Amino acid sequence: MKFKVSSELEYQVLMPSTFIFNIQVSKASSQKVIEESLVVNPQLPVEEFISATGDARFIRIRIKKPTTFSINYQATVDTRHIILDEKRHSDEVPVDKLDTDVIPYLFPSRYCQSDRIQKLAFKEFGDIDNLYLKVLAITEWIYNNVEYLSGSTNASTSAIDTITERAGVCRDFAHLGIALCRALSIPARYYTGYAYQLVPQDFHACFEAYIGGNWIFFDPTKLVPLNGLVKIANGRDAADAAVASIYGNTICNKMVVNCECLEKEFNPYHYEESKQEGLSYQ
Amino acid sequence: MKFKVSSELEYQVLMPSTFIFNIQVSKASSQKVIEESLVVNPQLPVEEFISATGDARFIRIRIKKPTTFSINYQATVDTRHIILDEKRHSDEVPVDKLDTDVIPYLFPSRYCQSDRIQKLAFKEFGDIDNLYLKVLAITEWIYNNVEYLSGSTNASTSAIDTITERAGVCRDFAHLGIALCRALSIPARYYTGYAYQLVPQDFHACFEAYIGGNWIFFDPTKLVPLNGLVKIANGRDAADAAVASIYGNTICNKMVVNCECLEKEFNPYHYEESKQEGLSYQ
Amino acid sequence: MKFKVSSELEYQVLMPSTFIFNIQVSKASSQKVIEESLVVNPQLPVEEFISATGDARFIRIRIKKPTTFSINYQATVDTRHIILDEKRHSDEVPVDKLDTDVIPYLFPSRYCQSDRIQKLAFKEFGDIDNLYLKVLAITEWIYNNVEYLSGSTNASTSAIDTITERAGVCRDFAHLGIALCRALSIPARYYTGYAYQLVPQDFHACFEAYIGGNWIFFDPTKLVPLNGLVKIANGRDAADAAVASIYGNTICNKMVVNCECLEKEFNPYHYEESKQEGLSYQ
Amino acid sequence: MKFKVSSELEYQVLMPSTFIFNIQVSKASSQKVIEESLVVNPQLPVEEFISATGDARFIRIRIKKPTTFSINYQATVDTRHIILDEKRHSDEVPVDKLDTDVIPYLFPSRYCQSDRIQKLAFKEFGDIDNLYLKVLAITEWIYNNVEYLSGSTNASTSAIDTITERAGVCRDFAHLGIALCRALSIPARYYTGYAYQLVPQDFHACFEAYIGGNWIFFDPTKLVPLNGLVKIANGRDAADAAVASIYGNTICNKMVVNCECLEKEFNPYHYEESKQEGLSYQ
Repeated sequence: MKFKVSSELEYQVLMPSTFIFNIQVSKASSQKVIEESLVVNPQLPVEEFISATGDARFIRIRIKKPTTFSINYQATVDTRHIILDEKRHSDEVPVDKLDTDVIPYLFPSRYCQSDRIQKLAFKEFGDIDNLYLKVLAITEWIYNNVEYLSGSTNASTSAIDTITERAGVCRDFAHLGIALCRALSIPARYYTGYAYQLVPQDFHACFEAYIGGNWIFFDPTKLVPLNGLVKIANGRDAADAAVASIYGNTICNKMVVNCECLEKEFNPYHYEESKQEGLSYQ
Repeated sequence: MKFKVSSELEYQVLMPSTFIFNIQVSKASSQKVIEESLVVNPQLPVEEFISATGDARFIRIRIKKPTTFSINYQATVDTRHIILDEKRHSDEVPVDKLDTDVIPYLFPSRYCQSDRIQKLAFKEFGDIDNLYLKVLAITEWIYNNVEYLSGSTNASTSAIDTITERAGVCRDFAHLGIALCRALSIPARYYTGYAYQLVPQDFHACFEAYIGGNWIFFDPTKLVPLNGLVKIANGRDAADAAVASIYGNTICNKMVVNCECLEKEFNPYHYEESKQEGLSYQ
Repeated sequence: MKFKVSSELEYQVLMPSTFIFNIQVSKASSQKVIEESLVVNPQLPVEEFISATGDARFIRIRIKKPTTFSINYQATVDTRHIILDEKRHSDEVPVDKLDTDVIPYLFPSRYCQSDRIQKLAFKEFGDIDNLYLKVLAITEWIYNNVEYLSGSTNASTSAIDTITERAGVCRDFAHLGIALCRALSIPARYYTGYAYQLVPQDFHACFEAYIGGNWIFFDPTKLVPLNGLVKIANGRDAADAAVASIYGNTICNKMVVNCECLEKEFNPYHYEESKQEGLSYQ
Repeated sequence: MKFKVSSELEYQVLMPSTFIFNIQVSKASSQKVIEESLVVNPQLPVEEFISATGDARFIRIRIKKPTTFSINYQATVDTRHIILDEKRHSDEVPVDKLDTDVIPYLFPSRYCQSDRIQKLAFKEFGDIDNLYLKVLAITEWIYNNVEYLSGSTNASTSAIDTITERAGVCRDFAHLGIALCRALSIPARYYTGYAYQLVPQDFHACFEAYIGGNWIFFDPTKLVPLNGLVKIANGRDAADAAVASIYGNTICNKMVVNCECLEKEFNPYHYEESKQEGLSYQ
């Protein structure tokens, strides 16, 4: 499915600072980048990197003296997903291909302290055998127990804060979902991207759980159709895939994000418990 | 330099549990494994994996019903390190080869919340230009301001706890060193291994900072000679390289660790500020 | 009801230290001290204080050089409680006598960060109108969702840690109960005392909620009969009523606690939801 | 010294909520209230309480349905302070009159977790014998190591957050000062008031340490003259003396604070290390 995405950021830099941006769409196999452009104004040296797993594309910009600059990105992308029958995944833990790529997603990370919520996870979800239904129950629990509240959290908010405060934004919902999965030995990873029909438009965060050899997509916010995402990056959590990691002292003046669907028709896709279907971008 | 290392662990398992052990020596280029053996008693299915970066070797054991089991490991290893002149590294940030391998070590992680201590790091170490001296100052600061106190911390203790409590063990010292480096845009990673002349014998934890294109070794505990280490694994922090990640309910009955030097002579190596030398295992 | 209580503590003092002990039974109106004795060995100057509210009796001992000392206390006490009909307390907030004594018990405290769990409290207990049933539901929720696990927590563990980790001891159960009450505008206070039929014998911690003008007693651990307590102190939380607040560096060598009933007969009293009775020590 | 103070607050109430305001000036012996007025618009039932120590005056307002209301307060106050010679206070701990009023100010509280920073406090300030110089060193350390940064913290920020983040506002500076004092066995309490020459005008927070039998005033922000304060309340920390403790869901639309000096002349008073003078409001 074709989407046109764009983002426009402007920063005021108060002292020498380094930015690592992560706003370009991923060149993962699940999506094809048809065209894209990146403009930094004023022109500044830009270093590009990709993550070891190939999922994330970083732009590093070093600003040596106080200034204001903007970064504009746009891309046209063709995404691809499949719908899987998840009725079969009744194993207590996922077995297929639990290899070098997947292991790190079992461990606790900066914002997903799965080690501290094992008892809670077992208590709430330990009785569900089917892995897909277990993760679906996790997303429902988050949806029902955490209030979506803009501005209620910040860049240092983590899953254990959200367990306590019971409020947050998409990033916090994703972190809590990941932490609960890992606490139950289910590998889970952060997903950040552009999202069609997200109101108001912004970068979006969700998560994927590794079930039966596939990364199945979940969104505890229920804010967007599951088939309307364009991937920027995966990672253990937002630490791996922050829109901007900033070392220094800066002010963000502007952040405008957009995602349009270029297809004539778009059928929004959502999970239903009765169907036990899993959507996987691959 | 040749070392003989061994570890012996015994666990009582109270409910179905999964163990991921990380006690085998690394097959990194800095050391050659001459011989090794691993015995699990009673015999249980053992899955082996290596991490994506090749640094860590994991053993996964799933125990389906309550029991007691032990795991015995021993190896003979030949290690290799070089001593580098670090006087030249006066750059504000490291530039060489800041590639896909290194980027994740700039980001905050489970136990190294570098994002929350940027002001402290700049205040204490911002004025030191030479990168090696900056990291050496970090290790000295930790050594002088944090008390080494067995049993004062646990598996959920992180760098910000140590900044507050000012007490910990080698793992906590390493986490704080890593967090302070990353807060200053210096990539840093966790190092866990067997350590010669560590009293009492135990697994040891240190860290490496990426300076001038090399991973330079640092140990804020000052408990062992820097040239007496045998690597088990690197990682972002202990979450990547825990001796045992356990999903379930178990009791550790026994943990015996040993490291002997097989050389006729061993000259312990320590840093001196005046020499500005860096030791790198490579 | 008559009880004989005793405690015996021994400390090794490593550097000049100040102890504030809180092990003597309270001289509150709810209990009469028939006889008591306190022996410090070796003899040391002992300062005695009572708290502003009269509920707690403190002993301050300053040790000027390294030594070992013990403190032995015993008392015979006659306690008094009433059983109240709590069916009537359907008010959304308690109204009678919300005066200077009660107000501080509405505010968050060291171990009871009620300000951070308001959403959780409203979500779980907001629908229950009757105040007594609301607090009873809180104690049931804690009993069902938090595992009683000796040694799982320490002196810095607070209610938000317990919300996360879901394990703790009586002190942690009490702190969580207090925090949930205050989050719902119900004044609540910590209660520490000697407890008959507690196995193994130790100091015990519970809490009281202010309902309909009385401090109603609750114990989320369900470990002891509600009518077998001898009060040491009330306070906002354990910070006000720690067995020992220690400023310095010491090791506790020994802590032996005992509580016997001197009556011929003892009918253990527990709450039942259907009866809606509240026990109040007064 | 005569001051005229005022505050004007407006709230939008989204669901049934209870407010406890603490904006009226204290009727402590250190200041005389010449005249004052309080207007709530629309008129609502207002309950007034004073704290057990008499230091704080609370106003409780319960709003039963969504609405907008404002509260306007103004007062004319005559304050009184003395300047004490603090050279004599070389005792390791304060001895005079360590009675029922003072003990609670030794214990950790919601925002001042003194129990967790004892090692840091001893390391930084343990060598200073004179109590006044010790607390002055604490205020200087905070001033030099914590950045005053509006909007950097929120209502749940506590002393251990500030030790980590090294940024905050007056409330955070006061909490850290209190926590460090208590960690060193010096009773310390929160002070909130109106402050002359504070730019921009707002409620201000400072702290008092109990030295030689007097509550000596300290302000680690150095934002105002020490003799220009009009007390609203003392307390263990902001939990006891929050401008507004709100149980419910509300939005603050407006907060305007003012403090004018009615004297012809005002000589701003600040501490100098060489003079060793302590200012005490009494």
